[in-house]
Amino acid sequence: MGRMIIQGGIIVSSEDAVQADLLIEGEQIAGTLAHAVPRPDDMIIDASGLLVLPGIIDAHTHIQLDTGIYQTADNWEIGSKAATAGGVTTLIDFANQIKGKPFADALAARQAEAAQSSIDYAFHMVVLEPPHNIKQIEEDLESLLGLGIASIKLFTTYRPNYHLDDAQLWHIFRAMPSNMVAMVHCENDSLVTDATQRLVEQGKTAWTYHAESRPEEAEIEAINRVITLATLPVGRSKVYIVHCSASHSVFDVKQYRDEGYEIYCETCPQYLLLADSVYAGDKPEHFILQPPLRHEDNRRCLREFVQAGMVDVISTDTCDYSLAQKQANADFTKTPGGLPGIETLFPLMYTLFCDELGEPVTKIANLMTASPARIFGLYPRKGALQVGSDADVVLYDPEPEGTISHKDLHYVADYSPYEGMRVKGKVQMTISRGEIIYRDGQFLGKPGRGRFVPGQVTS
Amino acid sequence: MGRMIIQGGIIVSSEDAVQADLLIEGEQIAGTLAHAVPRPDDMIIDASGLLVLPGIIDAHTHIQLDTGIYQTADNWEIGSKAATAGGVTTLIDFANQIKGKPFADALAARQAEAAQSSIDYAFHMVVLEPPHNIKQIEEDLESLLGLGIASIKLFTTYRPNYHLDDAQLWHIFRAMPSNMVAMVHCENDSLVTDATQRLVEQGKTAWTYHAESRPEEAEIEAINRVITLATLPVGRSKVYIVHCSASHSVFDVKQYRDEGYEIYCETCPQYLLLADSVYAGDKPEHFILQPPLRHEDNRRCLREFVQAGMVDVISTDTCDYSLAQKQANADFTKTPGGLPGIETLFPLMYTLFCDELGEPVTKIANLMTASPARIFGLYPRKGALQVGSDADVVLYDPEPEGTISHKDLHYVADYSPYEGMRVKGKVQMTISRGEIIYRDGQFLGKPGRGRFVPGQVTS
Amino acid sequence: MGRMIIQGGIIVSSEDAVQADLLIEGEQIAGTLAHAVPRPDDMIIDASGLLVLPGIIDAHTHIQLDTGIYQTADNWEIGSKAATAGGVTTLIDFANQIKGKPFADALAARQAEAAQSSIDYAFHMVVLEPPHNIKQIEEDLESLLGLGIASIKLFTTYRPNYHLDDAQLWHIFRAMPSNMVAMVHCENDSLVTDATQRLVEQGKTAWTYHAESRPEEAEIEAINRVITLATLPVGRSKVYIVHCSASHSVFDVKQYRDEGYEIYCETCPQYLLLADSVYAGDKPEHFILQPPLRHEDNRRCLREFVQAGMVDVISTDTCDYSLAQKQANADFTKTPGGLPGIETLFPLMYTLFCDELGEPVTKIANLMTASPARIFGLYPRKGALQVGSDADVVLYDPEPEGTISHKDLHYVADYSPYEGMRVKGKVQMTISRGEIIYRDGQFLGKPGRGRFVPGQVTS
Amino acid sequence: MGRMIIQGGIIVSSEDAVQADLLIEGEQIAGTLAHAVPRPDDMIIDASGLLVLPGIIDAHTHIQLDTGIYQTADNWEIGSKAATAGGVTTLIDFANQIKGKPFADALAARQAEAAQSSIDYAFHMVVLEPPHNIKQIEEDLESLLGLGIASIKLFTTYRPNYHLDDAQLWHIFRAMPSNMVAMVHCENDSLVTDATQRLVEQGKTAWTYHAESRPEEAEIEAINRVITLATLPVGRSKVYIVHCSASHSVFDVKQYRDEGYEIYCETCPQYLLLADSVYAGDKPEHFILQPPLRHEDNRRCLREFVQAGMVDVISTDTCDYSLAQKQANADFTKTPGGLPGIETLFPLMYTLFCDELGEPVTKIANLMTASPARIFGLYPRKGALQVGSDADVVLYDPEPEGTISHKDLHYVADYSPYEGMRVKGKVQMTISRGEIIYRDGQFLGKPGRGRFVPGQVTS
Repeated sequence: MGRMIIQGGIIVSSEDAVQADLLIEGEQIAGTLAHAVPRPDDMIIDASGLLVLPGIIDAHTHIQLDTGIYQTADNWEIGSKAATAGGVTTLIDFANQIKGKPFADALAARQAEAAQSSIDYAFHMVVLEPPHNIKQIEEDLESLLGLGIASIKLFTTYRPNYHLDDAQLWHIFRAMPSNMVAMVHCENDSLVTDATQRLVEQGKTAWTYHAESRPEEAEIEAINRVITLATLPVGRSKVYIVHCSASHSVFDVKQYRDEGYEIYCETCPQYLLLADSVYAGDKPEHFILQPPLRHEDNRRCLREFVQAGMVDVISTDTCDYSLAQKQANADFTKTPGGLPGIETLFPLMYTLFCDELGEPVTKIANLMTASPARIFGLYPRKGALQVGSDADVVLYDPEPEGTISHKDLHYVADYSPYEGMRVKGKVQMTISRGEIIYRDGQFLGKPGRGRFVPGQVTS
Repeated sequence: MGRMIIQGGIIVSSEDAVQADLLIEGEQIAGTLAHAVPRPDDMIIDASGLLVLPGIIDAHTHIQLDTGIYQTADNWEIGSKAATAGGVTTLIDFANQIKGKPFADALAARQAEAAQSSIDYAFHMVVLEPPHNIKQIEEDLESLLGLGIASIKLFTTYRPNYHLDDAQLWHIFRAMPSNMVAMVHCENDSLVTDATQRLVEQGKTAWTYHAESRPEEAEIEAINRVITLATLPVGRSKVYIVHCSASHSVFDVKQYRDEGYEIYCETCPQYLLLADSVYAGDKPEHFILQPPLRHEDNRRCLREFVQAGMVDVISTDTCDYSLAQKQANADFTKTPGGLPGIETLFPLMYTLFCDELGEPVTKIANLMTASPARIFGLYPRKGALQVGSDADVVLYDPEPEGTISHKDLHYVADYSPYEGMRVKGKVQMTISRGEIIYRDGQFLGKPGRGRFVPGQVTS
Repeated sequence: MGRMIIQGGIIVSSEDAVQADLLIEGEQIAGTLAHAVPRPDDMIIDASGLLVLPGIIDAHTHIQLDTGIYQTADNWEIGSKAATAGGVTTLIDFANQIKGKPFADALAARQAEAAQSSIDYAFHMVVLEPPHNIKQIEEDLESLLGLGIASIKLFTTYRPNYHLDDAQLWHIFRAMPSNMVAMVHCENDSLVTDATQRLVEQGKTAWTYHAESRPEEAEIEAINRVITLATLPVGRSKVYIVHCSASHSVFDVKQYRDEGYEIYCETCPQYLLLADSVYAGDKPEHFILQPPLRHEDNRRCLREFVQAGMVDVISTDTCDYSLAQKQANADFTKTPGGLPGIETLFPLMYTLFCDELGEPVTKIANLMTASPARIFGLYPRKGALQVGSDADVVLYDPEPEGTISHKDLHYVADYSPYEGMRVKGKVQMTISRGEIIYRDGQFLGKPGRGRFVPGQVTS
Repeated sequence: MGRMIIQGGIIVSSEDAVQADLLIEGEQIAGTLAHAVPRPDDMIIDASGLLVLPGIIDAHTHIQLDTGIYQTADNWEIGSKAATAGGVTTLIDFANQIKGKPFADALAARQAEAAQSSIDYAFHMVVLEPPHNIKQIEEDLESLLGLGIASIKLFTTYRPNYHLDDAQLWHIFRAMPSNMVAMVHCENDSLVTDATQRLVEQGKTAWTYHAESRPEEAEIEAINRVITLATLPVGRSKVYIVHCSASHSVFDVKQYRDEGYEIYCETCPQYLLLADSVYAGDKPEHFILQPPLRHEDNRRCLREFVQAGMVDVISTDTCDYSLAQKQANADFTKTPGGLPGIETLFPLMYTLFCDELGEPVTKIANLMTASPARIFGLYPRKGALQVGSDADVVLYDPEPEGTISHKDLHYVADYSPYEGMRVKGKVQMTISRGEIIYRDGQFLGKPGRGRFVPGQVTS
C-alpha cells in the first residue's frame, strides 16, 4: 500500500519547528525526513510554505449535549465534521455518570452517540454522584482507568444535578488514583445562585444582566477552595481548573503550582478575545455562557498570562446551540449557556498569539496539542508527530487573511461569537490517522470513522 | 473619699513590667507612682512580690448559653463570680440575633440576663440571618456601632440555626463598616456533617469518636475560604478567626497577614494544653467540644506559634455544662460541646508560657488584656492600667505552686478538663472598677454590679 | 526637695496618648497621675494643650566628628545645646576604634570629648580594624558589653580607613555576642569608587554631579550582601541598616525580616523630605551627603514605607559642617558630606507624618524614642516615661505654625537643608533628668551635665 | 553516497523516547523513521536494545588549560579523543581574553589549539579585563556575537588574573547584549582568600584542609551578589551560575527564577557523587578542586534538586591534570585544582539518576544535550536529533554493569575521582557529523576533524 509524503512543510512540535518531509504509512507517522524519496504508489502532498502540525486536540467539548434542560443542536456527525474544518482531529468530550449505574454504562451510552464521529475522541467522566461508601469511590474511580478514562469532571455549581458538595469533592480527591486528573468547574454555587436570584427579584433577567449573575469572585473563591481541598494533607490530587475566565484565577493557580502542587489550568478563546462590553451590545444572547465574559482589562491580563506560560491548555468548552435556542427566551436564566467554537479554535489563537503578539507557533500549538495530550494521557499517540504517533496532521497555511463569518463555518449554530474578526491563516488540510478528511474546504471524512482513544496518565 | 494604693508590685502592661505603686481613685486608675504617699483615708494594699496586671479579659465566653438544644448550667451571677477567682474582670460574650427583630432587641435581651453579672461585659453580636436586602445589611451592621457593638460573630457550620452560606458571608463582609470586626467560627459544614454522619452510620457515636467527626481539614478549609471571601476585591474586612485548634490554621492566617490583610486569630488553653489522646482515655466526655482536640504534635506547634507572636488572643470559649449534662448520653452527637475554663485561663497560660517556656509575662498577659481590648474596641478603658482606665486590676502571686482541682473552682461544672495539672502562681486579688471583688479565695463582689462596656474600634 | 509636676498634658508613649499629670522626683519619673496634688515646694508646669513626650533620642549623630580629613565645626557643648532646642535628650554617637588599642581607649577618648555635653549620650563603637585572630574578635566584642557599648558600627565603604572587607564582616557577624547589634553603612565600595572615578575623569566634579557618584544600586547591593553574610548558617546576627536612602532598601529588609531574621532599618529626615532635584538647584553644596538624595518618587515611597511600619528608627546622621567648609571646594569629592539636623528632627517628622499625613503621634514618636532605646539597650531608662525612667521629657506645642530658618537654629552650620520648610508645632520645653534645660527658646542647661548611658540589649 | 541507518534503537530527545530508525545523510540527521528501507550502499547499524541519544555536550571544560601557573596534561587531541569514549560530541570550552587585545585574537589563538580536536567545539569568552569605557564594553561584547560567541565567563575570585570587581561585573551586566549569557564562577574572593590565609598561617596546607579553605558560604554569598547586580533595575541579564556545589545555591537560584529572572544553574558529577569525607581519606589530592566537595547531606539534597528540575545543566568542569601534577606538592595551595571527567559524565549520571533513582532518561539526557545547547545557542544544530541537526549521535547500551577504573579511561590523568564506582550501561558508539568516531572501545576519529560551532542565542 502506498504511503503519504507531506513534502517541504515546517513541521511543528511542542519544542521545535523544522522544515522536513513527513512520512505516513497507514494510520501512523512513519518518519520525518529531510527528503523522503517517493515510491511510485506514494501520495505526495506539497506542503511548501505550510505549517505541519499535530492534529489539534480540543480537550473540552460538549458535542450533542443534553443538560437535562437543553439539548445542543449538533450531534457527533455534525460536530466532528465541523471540527475537521478547524484542523481538530481529537475531541475530548464528556460522558455523564448515570446515577446508580456503573461508569461503564455511562461510557457505553456516550460511545454509542460518538459512534457517528468522523474523528477520534476520548472522554472525561462527569461524576454526578459519588457512591457514599468511600471504598466504593476508590474502586469506581480505579475502574475508570480500565475503561480508558484518565480524567474525571467535577462541578462546584449547577444544583441539583451537577453540584458536588465539599465533602464529596474531598472524598473524591482522596480516593482518586494518583494517575487520574480531576477537572473542576469552579464557581461558588452559593454566590452565583444568590447573585442570580437577586437579579430575578429585580426583574433583571434580560440577557444584558448575565455577567452580573456570576461574579468573578465566585470563580476565584471556588478555585482556592478546590485546590485547598485537593492539597490538604492526605489528598494531593492532580487538579485541572477548567475555563478560567478571570486572570486572577490563573494567578492563584500559579501560586499553588509554585508551592509544588500539580495543578493545571485552562482558558478558552472567548475569554481571550471577548469582553463583557458585548452584554451592552445588540446581540447579548450570542454571549451567554458560564462563566461569563469579563472586563476588558481582565482579557488583556489573561493574554499576558498565556504568553508568560501560566496556562496549560486552550480549549473551547463548545456548546453548539442554535440562535433560535439562544433567542427563545429573552431571559438569561432561560437561555442555554455555551458558545460554539471548535472550528475556529486554532485559527483564532494562531492569529492572536502568533500573528498579533509575536509568539512562536510551537509555543501556542503546544497548548492545543502536546500539552492536553500529556495531561489527559493521550500522548504520544495524539499531540505529536513522532514515529508511531497516530497520523493526525493539520496543514495550516499561515498567509491568507480572512474574516470570521458564521456562513463559512460548519457547525449548526447560525452565528459566531467571533463574527467579523480578522483571522490570519487557514486550515488547508486535515488528516486523521493517515486519511485526508478535510481539504481545501471540502469535508472528505465519513461519519463513524472516528475511534475512541483511551487515556492513560503515567505517574 | 479614700483612694486605693497598691504598693510595691510589678506593674505589667503589654510593653513593660515596672515596680511601682498603683493609685486608684473611685472607679479609675489615677496614677502610677514610684512611691505614693498615703493619705489617712487611703486603703493600702501591699503588693510586694506580686504581679499587678490589668484585669484579664476573656474575649470569647458563653455564659448562660442557650443553644436551642442545650442550656449551660451557669448563669451570669455564677459565671462572673467564677471569673473573678481567675482574675477576669471583663467578659466579652455573645448576643444572638433574634431572627426578624432588630439587633437592639437581641442586645436588650442579653443585657437583661447579664444584669446579674458582678463584672463588666461586652458583646459580640451573632448574626444568624442577615437581611436579604444588602442596603439593609449595611444599615443593620452600622446600627450595631451605635449600640456599642464593634464585632459580629459568624458561623460557617451548625445548620440550620447558625450556619451562614457563602453568599451571606460575602455580603456581610462587603457591607461591614470598616471599623467592625467579624469573628468567624470556621469549620466546613459539609465536611463535619459528612464525617459525623458516617460515624453515626457505623454506630460510632461513643465519645471516643468525637475528634474524628470534625477533621482539622474542615477548619483549615473554612479559614482559607472565609479569608478569601473577606479579602476579595471589594470586601477588605477585618476578620478574627476564633478558636484555632490546628497549628496549620495559624500558619495560614500568618500568610494572609503577611500579604497585608487585617486578619486576627485566637486560640484557647484547651488546644495548647490537651491533645486528642484524651478521647482514648477514661473520661472522653470531659473533652467534647468543637473544634475537638488535635494531635499532640499539633499542640506543640501551636505553642511555638504563640511564642512566635503569631496568635493575637487567647480566650476560653467557655461553656459551663455540668458533668451530668456531659454524661447524659454516651453519644458525642448528643453531648453538649464546650469546656469550662474562665477561672483557669490566666493561671494556666502563665504556668505554660512564663513558668515553663520562659516567656515574659508582659507578652503573655497582653494576649488576654491589651490585645483583645484593642481588637474589640475596649482599649484603653479595659486592658490597660493607664490613667483614666477602669481600675480593673489583678494581683497575681507568681510563687505558689498548686494543682488544678475542680473542687477549688467556682463555676458550676463539677469537673475540670485540666484536673490535676500543675499551676504556678495564683490570683490573690481581683479589683473591678476600684472595688475589691475577690481576695484570698473570698468572693466579695455583688451580682449586678457589672456594667455593659460599649466597644468602639478606631480603624 | 521639691518635685516637678507637669500638669494636664497629653502623655505620649509608644502605645498610648493619655491626658494626665507627670510627676518627676529628682532625676526620675516618679509617676503618672490623673491629678497630682502639689505640695508647697513642687514646681508646677502647665502642659495643657501640649504633648508630653519622652525626650527624643537621636540614634545616629556625629558630633565633633574628625574623619581624618574633615572636622565638623561643632563640639559637644554646641551640638548638645542645639539638640535641646529640638527636644533631644539623648544622643547616640560613635566612638572610633583606635587601631591597635583596646576599645576601652577609644571609648575613653570619646568620653573625654563628650564630657562637655549638656545632655546624655551613648556610643556605638566603630570597628575600623578587627583583630585578625577570631577568638580575639570575640573577646574584644564581648568586652564592649562590659563598657556599656551594645552596638558596633561597620562600614562597607570609605577605603582605606573605614572599609571592612567581606571576610572581616563575616567574622565579626559570627563573633558578635547575641545581644549586640551591628549597624552597617551599606554602600558597595567598588560601585561608588568606580562611579566617582568616572565622574572625576570627565571633570564632572561639580556638586551637581554628587548623586551620580553613589548610585542607589550600590546601597541595595550592599544591604543584600550584608544581610546574606549576617544570616548565613552560623552567623545569625542582629543587623541594623543605617540611613536607608532608597525605598527598595527598606523593601528588601522587610523581605528578610519576614523570613524571621532580626534586621532593623533606619532612615533620616533628609531622605523623606528632600529629593535629588536639589542638585540641579542653586545650592547643591548644601546637600552633599552619603548616601545622596534620591529621586522624588523614591521619597514618596519611602514615606509610605514609614507609614506602613517598615522602618524602625528615624535618626539624623548629623554632621555639622559650616557653610564655609561646604563651599571651600566646588568639587563634590572634596566637600565634606553630611547635613546638620538634630534640632529639626522631631518637628519636621511631626509635621510630615502627623500633621500632613495623619499618622498618630504615638506611632511617629516611637521611631525616635522607645524604638531606638529598645534596639540599642537604653530602654526603659531612656525612651519611656514610666516610673523609674530618667526624667527626660519634651513638651511639644502642636499648634504654632512656623518656617525653618537657619537663623533660628542653634547649631554651627549657618544654613539648613530644610530652609523655608513649613513646620507645625514647636518644642516648648526640654527636661533632662528632671532639670529644665531648654524653655521658650532659652537654653538653660550646663555644658558637662550630660552623662554616659551604657547600653544593654536583652536578647 | 551511502547513508547511515541506525536501526531499531530507542531514540531519546529531551521530551520523548521512541523506538525508530534514525537516518543520517552526510553530516546531518536526515530523518527518523518507523522502518527505514535500506539502499544497497547504506551502512546499517543495529541499535536494538540501545538508547540513541543526541551526542552529549559537555558545556564546561578546560582542555589544554594554561592558568598561568599550571598547564593541564592534556591537549585537544587527547581531550577530544577521551570525550568520544564518553559519547561526548561537543565541548564548550573557554577562550581567555588576551588583555589589551580584541576578543577576536583570543578566539583565534584558542581556535588554533582546538584545531587538533576530533570533535566539535564552541567557546565561552573569559572576560579578564573589560575596557574601562562603557561604550567600549558594549561594543566589545556585541562584537563577540559576530564571532560566534554567545556566552562570556566572569570570575568573582582568583586575584589577580581572573577576578572582576563588583563595578566591573555591574558594567558588564548592563552592557551585555540581551541575547548573551554571562556564566559566573561565584565564590566570594574575600572569604576564600581569608580562609586560605588562615590555614596557611596555621601550617594547615595539607590536602586534607582543602575544603575548609573555600567555605560554601563564599559560594552562596557570591551567587546572591551576582544575581542582585545582574537584576538591579537597569541590568536584567541572563546569568548562568557555574558548578554549584552547595544545594543552598541551587535553592537561591530557584527563588530568583520564581520572581521572573532568567537565571540558570549548573552542577557537576563530582558534587553529586562525592562528599568532603574524601579529604580525610588516603587520596585527598585526587579531589582538589574549586569549589571543593561538600558535606554528604549537601550531596543528597543536590541530587533531589536535580530530580526536582531545579538544575539546568550538568557539566564536568574538567581539568585534566596528571597525578604527578596533583602530587607534586603536598600543599593544597600549590596543587592544581580540577578533576578529569568528560569521559565518565554521561555514564555516571545515567547510573545515578536513571538506574538508581528511577528518573527517565529523557529528563537526564536533556541536562547534557538540549538544555545546554539551547542556553548557549547551539540548538538545534547540536543537542537534538531532528532533521537538519548535525548527526552527532551516541549509542548507549543500558545493560552492562561495570566499574570505573582509570585504566579503562582515555584522558591523561592516571587516576579517576570515581575509581571503583559502579556504572550501569556503556557507550557503544559515538558518531560525529555522520562519522563513527568511537566504536566498541576503539577510537576511530582523526585529530583535527572537529569544527568550531558558533553559538547564537535567540532571546
